[in-house]
Amino acid sequence: MTEKAFQDYYPESYSHCYGCGSKNDRGLQVKSYWDGDESVAVFEPETYHLAFPGYVYGGLIASIIDCHSTGTAAAAGYRLEGRAMDTLPPLRFVTASLQVDYLRPTPLGPPLNLRSRIVEIKARKVVVETDLIVEGERTAKARVVAVQLPEHLALE
Amino acid sequence: MTEKAFQDYYPESYSHCYGCGSKNDRGLQVKSYWDGDESVAVFEPETYHLAFPGYVYGGLIASIIDCHSTGTAAAAGYRLEGRAMDTLPPLRFVTASLQVDYLRPTPLGPPLNLRSRIVEIKARKVVVETDLIVEGERTAKARVVAVQLPEHLALE
Repeated sequence: MTEKAFQDYYPESYSHCYGCGSKNDRGLQVKSYWDGDESVAVFEPETYHLAFPGYVYGGLIASIIDCHSTGTAAAAGYRLEGRAMDTLPPLRFVTASLQVDYLRPTPLGPPLNLRSRIVEIKARKVVVETDLIVEGERTAKARVVAVQLPEHLALE
Repeated sequence: MTEKAFQDYYPESYSHCYGCGSKNDRGLQVKSYWDGDESVAVFEPETYHLAFPGYVYGGLIASIIDCHSTGTAAAAGYRLEGRAMDTLPPLRFVTASLQVDYLRPTPLGPPLNLRSRIVEIKARKVVVETDLIVEGERTAKARVVAVQLPEHLALE
């Protein structure tokens, strides 16, 4: 895929995020893309990302949902303003709240597919709902409230 | 501290959890203890556990809250049954839902202190509320619904 991910447009200060920063070598490096009006990401868990043998660790699920959803919120913000993600000023969204419902154990091995839709969007607040789908089955669903971070807070 | 943590009593199948398994060398190894009727854990984040420079990654916060809260649920289950955590049968709790509210950015550097209380307890379901406190300030709060995992599910 040659298309740039949402996270590839992040400004320098956001590129070190453990979950999705392209410059965090120890991190998860989540990459998110539009698929029509929904956003998608695929994550390949490591063998050590387990909760118990055979199943994915729930904290990893929460982590990739978090980054994929805030990335989606940022991308949606640019869309709302009718401008590309590489234009200024940058939009930076952080998580105000994260709700994950674990519907069934998620098998460890196959790719983890995230799919999100925007359910509410305002200038400074975006609500994103995200499904985790593995081998065609939804194993978790989430709701993330993302808020735009004022520039001065990021620099405090 | 010579007291054993809740997680040190986990059966073999739970000792590989990325968040709290004592046998997961790549994991976070969260350790939880009673402090009266509340439970506590202290976690020292790594420098690479950042969201953006100076602040802790929210997915890490969700992860340590998840493991500390399900560990607390298990410990509370044993207390409810009036038996020690090293007695059989083992009680295994998994997360049904995780809600984290990020109240303010969490500074990266000082120890992360988790403190939980049981707000509902039944034989198969425990609800735990957890605060994240850093340098005396609460930066996140969470509600975890933990459910007991039937033995056959863990072995599927």
